[in-house]
Amino acid sequence: MSLISVGTMAFDAIETPFGKVDRIIGGSATYVAYAASNFIKPVQQISIVGNDFPQDEMDALINRGVELDGVEVVPDKKSFFWSGKYHIDMNTRDTLITDLNVLADFNPIVPESYQGAEFLMLGNLMPSLQLSVIKQLQKRPKLIVMDTMNFWMDIAMDDLKTVLKEVDVLLVNDGEARQLSEEVSLVKAARKILTMGPKFLIIKKGEHGALLFHENHVFFAPALPLEEVFDPTGAGDTFAGGFMGHLAKTKDISFENMKTAIIVGSALASFCVEKFGTERLREITQEDVNARLNEFVQLVNFDINLV
Amino acid sequence: MSLISVGTMAFDAIETPFGKVDRIIGGSATYVAYAASNFIKPVQQISIVGNDFPQDEMDALINRGVELDGVEVVPDKKSFFWSGKYHIDMNTRDTLITDLNVLADFNPIVPESYQGAEFLMLGNLMPSLQLSVIKQLQKRPKLIVMDTMNFWMDIAMDDLKTVLKEVDVLLVNDGEARQLSEEVSLVKAARKILTMGPKFLIIKKGEHGALLFHENHVFFAPALPLEEVFDPTGAGDTFAGGFMGHLAKTKDISFENMKTAIIVGSALASFCVEKFGTERLREITQEDVNARLNEFVQLVNFDINLV
Repeated sequence: MSLISVGTMAFDAIETPFGKVDRIIGGSATYVAYAASNFIKPVQQISIVGNDFPQDEMDALINRGVELDGVEVVPDKKSFFWSGKYHIDMNTRDTLITDLNVLADFNPIVPESYQGAEFLMLGNLMPSLQLSVIKQLQKRPKLIVMDTMNFWMDIAMDDLKTVLKEVDVLLVNDGEARQLSEEVSLVKAARKILTMGPKFLIIKKGEHGALLFHENHVFFAPALPLEEVFDPTGAGDTFAGGFMGHLAKTKDISFENMKTAIIVGSALASFCVEKFGTERLREITQEDVNARLNEFVQLVNFDINLV
Repeated sequence: MSLISVGTMAFDAIETPFGKVDRIIGGSATYVAYAASNFIKPVQQISIVGNDFPQDEMDALINRGVELDGVEVVPDKKSFFWSGKYHIDMNTRDTLITDLNVLADFNPIVPESYQGAEFLMLGNLMPSLQLSVIKQLQKRPKLIVMDTMNFWMDIAMDDLKTVLKEVDVLLVNDGEARQLSEEVSLVKAARKILTMGPKFLIIKKGEHGALLFHENHVFFAPALPLEEVFDPTGAGDTFAGGFMGHLAKTKDISFENMKTAIIVGSALASFCVEKFGTERLREITQEDVNARLNEFVQLVNFDINLV
């Protein structure tokens, strides 16, 4: 029941109204790994780093059951670096620096030892690279989940639509769903996107929760109302990691179980934003996760007696 | 188990991306009455209209079990008139015209026949008028719910805070909760507002649902994802009417039952926006309401087995 996770491993510099960090570990695959490893081992990572990526960070992942055979270490280059500054409302941010470094040459190779994985998480990357990973797998995984972003819709929409035909679940935010479908109404957008390939669509709305669409069904998962959002970086990837971790653990890819998986993802994301970077995700225990899941049950639980 | 509802009865002219109406029946008390009368009779209305308010509109309300003894008809003036135009996203609107007309002289009088009502809904009005209604009641209602808006926070904050001390439930939107509390975080805003008088706080977030706060508890009710929002006018008042109608019908003002009441209010509001003005609210049956409530159950229902 292994899970392959493809994405970035990087350094981030982040400024929020609450503080500033110059160089911490980030990247989509890093967040996915920290979230999913609460539920499943191994998480089989595919990524690329430079000569500056710390060995103790690699060891920390290995200790959580993350396999790094698919992580290429480029000896003469630096790791991907991103720097951003959040606005006071924490819902919007400016990207200050994007140094692709090793990412410019990323050509993901699936190691032989990863073949046979049942779950594949395609982090936000150039669509042609996402497709390349799918094509390298000798047996199609039970479930392929794909993240993407508006940037690829702007410059590589045709490639993006090609990958869409190969995946089971698409993860996007509300703005991206509208851009991809050219529909303002999220219900109409979902209906259209579900004709493009994916059988399930998750629309993330940040502090306003997430929607899951499948055939004519819709499920809504709230975000936990938090006293303070300290740093939203990685919340979306953490959500994806929790979602995939729960599905891979239970091996149940029904709509009913995806609803539960979205709540699990939301719970993990609610921890992520409490501290900078992956810091909070490294601390939490199974008891913390269960307590948070119980908060979600309380948050939306109500009785209706239809008369 | 009667419910007193205080608010406006008016004419509205509305323009949305889907169409335009020049002069239809509106006003907060009108929407509350159309929603609450699905659950409870009588709804005892307190309002003011001019000589132009149609008798057949009065009759339509009476036929739904709405008592109009508290509605003053001013023979030589016109009814309150509001005109607004919605932007393409339907979340924001411009007010084009506000003709107060009779509303400028509104001095609500509680008829003797309304004394003893167990539920009081104070629609959005000048805070001193809301207080006047409370003071006229010989026996304090079991539950007083108050709506208000940013306008009164700008020009009559002291009066508003005086009324707050007398009510059980405050209904505001997210921006108003932030303005009233001077807190950005809604969780912090809620904690502060719950020290100002109300024991329950409902924060409406439009298409993003509503939050109910009470002591250390929080409940989240989603809005139903709709294919099209045709006209949002009156959705907040319809929500309030459904909420009050359910509480008055069940006579149960516990936190648990308020959760259900918020779902009922959200269901009624989801009908309201499907057509212009009160049109859709006049059509729906008990079966329609039940079917919609069932959609809400499906929308948020999930299973978690904590391990």
